Amino acid sequence: MTTFADHLQASIEKTSSALIAGCDPVIEKFPAFLLEEASAKTKSDDDFIDRALSMFCETFLAAVVGRVAAVKPNIAFFEQYGLAGLSVFKRFCEHARAAGVPVIIDAKRGDIGSTAAAYSSAFIGGTKVRGHSFVPFECDALTINPFLGFDTLEPFVTDCERTGKGLFILLQTSNPGAKDIQGLECGGKTVSGHIADWLATNASRLEGASGWSGLGAVVGASYPDEARALRKLLPTTFFLMPGFGAQGAAADDAVAGFGVQNGKRGGALVNVSRGLLEGASTSVEELKAVIVANTDKFNGQLRAALS
Amino acid sequence: MTTFADHLQASIEKTSSALIAGCDPVIEKFPAFLLEEASAKTKSDDDFIDRALSMFCETFLAAVVGRVAAVKPNIAFFEQYGLAGLSVFKRFCEHARAAGVPVIIDAKRGDIGSTAAAYSSAFIGGTKVRGHSFVPFECDALTINPFLGFDTLEPFVTDCERTGKGLFILLQTSNPGAKDIQGLECGGKTVSGHIADWLATNASRLEGASGWSGLGAVVGASYPDEARALRKLLPTTFFLMPGFGAQGAAADDAVAGFGVQNGKRGGALVNVSRGLLEGASTSVEELKAVIVANTDKFNGQLRAALS
Repeated sequence: MTTFADHLQASIEKTSSALIAGCDPVIEKFPAFLLEEASAKTKSDDDFIDRALSMFCETFLAAVVGRVAAVKPNIAFFEQYGLAGLSVFKRFCEHARAAGVPVIIDAKRGDIGSTAAAYSSAFIGGTKVRGHSFVPFECDALTINPFLGFDTLEPFVTDCERTGKGLFILLQTSNPGAKDIQGLECGGKTVSGHIADWLATNASRLEGASGWSGLGAVVGASYPDEARALRKLLPTTFFLMPGFGAQGAAADDAVAGFGVQNGKRGGALVNVSRGLLEGASTSVEELKAVIVANTDKFNGQLRAALS
Repeated sequence: MTTFADHLQASIEKTSSALIAGCDPVIEKFPAFLLEEASAKTKSDDDFIDRALSMFCETFLAAVVGRVAAVKPNIAFFEQYGLAGLSVFKRFCEHARAAGVPVIIDAKRGDIGSTAAAYSSAFIGGTKVRGHSFVPFECDALTINPFLGFDTLEPFVTDCERTGKGLFILLQTSNPGAKDIQGLECGGKTVSGHIADWLATNASRLEGASGWSGLGAVVGASYPDEARALRKLLPTTFFLMPGFGAQGAAADDAVAGFGVQNGKRGGALVNVSRGLLEGASTSVEELKAVIVANTDKFNGQLRAALS
């Protein structure tokens, strides 16, 4: 069984990229040509949503395959379009995985006991029906929220130990209010510090042959000092770093979260979402070219900062 | 515009019940008769899931309508069955609301900025498509997770101010590890205490004519001392209290979270989920009778503890 950590590390090496492409579609902001094409001869909203989201997601995927280490669809942006949106979400994850791109589903799920187990079934472990098991929204790794306590993370970790998949625990998020709770000082360390202790204790459970652990953490690029401190506590943990691009963090900030294994910098994925879409387009080909150009630009910035 | 707080208060008075019925379906645990009926002439898993979940949910709803103040479907238990499960989830919420029962969707969502806004669109505020707006998974109130910071709660609260819907913020959960993070002491108060301060400051934003606020909080019945302390800090906040029944808390524990308005005890919903299903059945009628009998039993215990 290949672990998520090794699958991801191989993808980083193959693409020479530590970039992860966030897919957060907002139909209202799609280019006019795409909305017109999706609307033509379409009567129902669900049909329109399916056509618009599918066209966008397929173009997005075609643009980033081979250029980024992984993709990160955020399920919120699909859930807001109801069942039609979630149907495209499922297909997007399947198509990306079929193309060999690791898929990290950004769902930030968290609940207690059997409910946490149900979420883990949905994305990682699989649900039993009529004597067999299936994973309805299968991914390579999932983001989860630790606020309810460390016992609530166990169903996810146990499923990952069995299936070889990975997790990214929210540790230090990238938003302005991140420190309201995560930054509170309790007994000589922050709330994030307490979570980091748990991550350090459990890192080996999802460690790959590469030395990196797939029991990862979300660490915002917008707080480079905190990222540096967390990296010291978690030398082998894969960091998923949002905040690059539209959220204001520069490539140099993101680099603060990188670690070192076998003499090489690594162990971090830097996310860019909205920044990939900046630019006008009047056809599918142009939209793809915009995303390719932005991906290359961010890859260039990140490679320069890392070298 | 009727606020959620007043809608819920009216339902509590109409049903003479502070019970909320949690709907957490696990197909593998359904009675044999139901599985056989759902399986008959069914080829696809999705068809089986739709039939089994629909039969269960319709029976559940028929049993609890008029007997409980509200219903609380937990979306995790439907998400684990994929699109087929979420389709039944959507219908369950619609049917319950059509029957006049307030629906609290337990989704524990939380994310930052525009992603939090997307989650709020999905459940509360509505999504814009082709010039109009629709709420794909409409509810009367939603549970949300505050771990990412108070700025991340704003899109939800703002949508509730506009639509009259409500929220339950995770404050003190009912699981064994709840205190790992929520119970950490920071500057003379716990993490939960810091969240309670925010809730106290903002309670008036979703306050109804009844005096109760629909900016509610999840407070586990399994920690009665904490519930009593939080009630002192939050005299008008609606509490959603899990932990009653299968999770081990007694009616007396739950009562610790109740407040007083106009000389009457109130301001809390006590959740029971698995406990409603205890008992054998060999037909839809018997399954309904089991749920009715359990509902009446828990209502009796709660009324006795409150009187």
